[in-house]
Amino acid sequence: MSAIAVTDSQKDKKALNGAGLRGQSAGTTSLCTVGQSGTGLTYRGYDITDLAHHAEFEEVAYLLLKGQLPTQSELDNYKQALQSARGLPPALCLVLEAIPASAHPMDVMRTGCSMLGNLDQELDFSEQGEKTDTLLALLPAIICYWYRYSHHGVRINTANSTQDSIGGYFLEMLTGEAPSELHKKVMHCSLVLYAEHEFNASTFTARVCASTLSDLHSCITAAIGSLRGPLHGGANEAAMAMIEQWQSAEQAEAGTMEMLANKDKIMGFGHAIYRESDPRNALIKEWSRKLSKDVNDTHLFEVSEKVEQIMKREKGLFPNADFFHASAYHFMGIPTKLFTPIFVMSRVTGWAAHVFEQRENNRIIRPSADYQGPEHQDWLPIEQRI
Amino acid sequence: MSAIAVTDSQKDKKALNGAGLRGQSAGTTSLCTVGQSGTGLTYRGYDITDLAHHAEFEEVAYLLLKGQLPTQSELDNYKQALQSARGLPPALCLVLEAIPASAHPMDVMRTGCSMLGNLDQELDFSEQGEKTDTLLALLPAIICYWYRYSHHGVRINTANSTQDSIGGYFLEMLTGEAPSELHKKVMHCSLVLYAEHEFNASTFTARVCASTLSDLHSCITAAIGSLRGPLHGGANEAAMAMIEQWQSAEQAEAGTMEMLANKDKIMGFGHAIYRESDPRNALIKEWSRKLSKDVNDTHLFEVSEKVEQIMKREKGLFPNADFFHASAYHFMGIPTKLFTPIFVMSRVTGWAAHVFEQRENNRIIRPSADYQGPEHQDWLPIEQRI
Repeated sequence: MSAIAVTDSQKDKKALNGAGLRGQSAGTTSLCTVGQSGTGLTYRGYDITDLAHHAEFEEVAYLLLKGQLPTQSELDNYKQALQSARGLPPALCLVLEAIPASAHPMDVMRTGCSMLGNLDQELDFSEQGEKTDTLLALLPAIICYWYRYSHHGVRINTANSTQDSIGGYFLEMLTGEAPSELHKKVMHCSLVLYAEHEFNASTFTARVCASTLSDLHSCITAAIGSLRGPLHGGANEAAMAMIEQWQSAEQAEAGTMEMLANKDKIMGFGHAIYRESDPRNALIKEWSRKLSKDVNDTHLFEVSEKVEQIMKREKGLFPNADFFHASAYHFMGIPTKLFTPIFVMSRVTGWAAHVFEQRENNRIIRPSADYQGPEHQDWLPIEQRI
Repeated sequence: MSAIAVTDSQKDKKALNGAGLRGQSAGTTSLCTVGQSGTGLTYRGYDITDLAHHAEFEEVAYLLLKGQLPTQSELDNYKQALQSARGLPPALCLVLEAIPASAHPMDVMRTGCSMLGNLDQELDFSEQGEKTDTLLALLPAIICYWYRYSHHGVRINTANSTQDSIGGYFLEMLTGEAPSELHKKVMHCSLVLYAEHEFNASTFTARVCASTLSDLHSCITAAIGSLRGPLHGGANEAAMAMIEQWQSAEQAEAGTMEMLANKDKIMGFGHAIYRESDPRNALIKEWSRKLSKDVNDTHLFEVSEKVEQIMKREKGLFPNADFFHASAYHFMGIPTKLFTPIFVMSRVTGWAAHVFEQRENNRIIRPSADYQGPEHQDWLPIEQRI
């Protein structure tokens, strides 16, 4: 769980030929392509750049979950339905109040989702769309209710918001104030960028769970648990912890060079699939630049750009989606420990869409293993053991 | 979720060549072989028949989790440690009391495990053994506390037990009375049989989650969600629902023939990997036979044997581990809806051992997908959509 453990594991990975199912097909999807041209990302055939420039997050959620982009009236109705589902059940509030402030926020998301499964159980697959909408509406409420209660002693009314978007709603629940237009636009872009990414580890977790014909809440709970891992979600939090150490571009250069010399892992760079660049980087980087001007940032954006430049120069590595998310979220006043829960609020759309797809054409996912243990051991009565 | 959905899905599966990773290696293990000779099952090289005849469940848990069979003093210390960890944290009791009686018991297990992750967080992988022991001790307490509170209005003291085994403890917490020697022996056998089964869907879920370097509670919570699916856990519950309809062998024969004629799925028969027989069947069947005599059963064991005979005659199918578990658990007075949670109390040992193994030699599990969606779609402004 420590940074050291991650680093060692990363070093070992080259020794594991064929492990991790890398490059092996584990099923079919109509939802997403990743890196087909070395840089591309599409959701149902739409380029991520088009979606990030033009679409609200709710349009993308609709696209992923219902199969096509909505008309204006479909979008209005969808947003209305999401808004009306923001009230937390009292039993869920009680659970969130029982979770200490010291808890890992992803454990709170996982527990909130699992508890909701007891209170809003999916009894039949025909309910999957409705249950997903409720989850989409409630995940920001879950994390903000716990955060505000455990950290500030405040019980917020999650049903009472002026915001019609999920991103705006999250910011309002977190701060108690209506967010600026700029912040709402950044949240739309951020949530669009994180919504879907083919058979990544958390999505694959959701599909393995779905393949047993388990319920939606089990699948999403399982996926949250996988996203919690430092090799998956959490890279933007690690990037933030790194860049906030440095007060200038010069410090950033010296610090980055030192980390490289020590073979420390630098989070937020490179990607398992993209080879040339991550198409999401340029999109969130532009918002981070705008936000840095908006808050009269003196150094954090400059520090981030310096790290980007050094990583390119020294390692030929490009920033992935996570790196400039760190500064962007920070400029909006979001506590670092809530970065990965925002990822959940977005990716729940991709996870659910994959669950629906797995159910449509299911076979239980049950691979084999290469056995390397003892061939046969004779039973030895306990008194003869030494 | 309905029986019909399962049946349809099962019919479709032959059309899905290569799906479900069947026969594809997804990693290495030293824990288990399944069906290497067509019938065999070994845990770390020990034959399941030897283990089921001679070992207490705690010996098998020790074998799986710590790598070898314990000496008598090691076993005594291990059981003592498990016994001393049976007290539920007050915040977990509060959560369990907030879950309604109508909840799915596997949702209770999943939520209890996830909540425990907030209260007993694994901060470093060096804690994995200790956190697993606490889970192993508390999973029976979690389900019994919820069940007794929600169904009978009783708050049990889970730390107060006369029993030194997990099986005996579960029965005592469930009924409020010390179980007979016979019942304790059956529980040992049952928990031994369910402890481990290579890369089945729930274990594979735990390994995918572990491959992101997530924490133990995330991995086990995810696995519980997968075991909940009717294609995985739950077969013994479905078998019970079927056999309890019939009052005689004649009714069972007529009913089974009718189900076969209707192409209804009959749960508890056949297996994805075993081809000739499931080695666990003979073991639990003998205990079911003994229990049937103990309770002066007039027909349930006979009904079960009749179904077994017909399935062999008509379909060439053999009972798997689940089929005679149904009658065995029923004879011990266990409510049908708690059958799959017992599976969790046992399989948590295999899940955790696989998590440890994945962490030892990790690469993130991230397969690819075959894309079959639209190749490219031009962005269409919302006012132009129809």
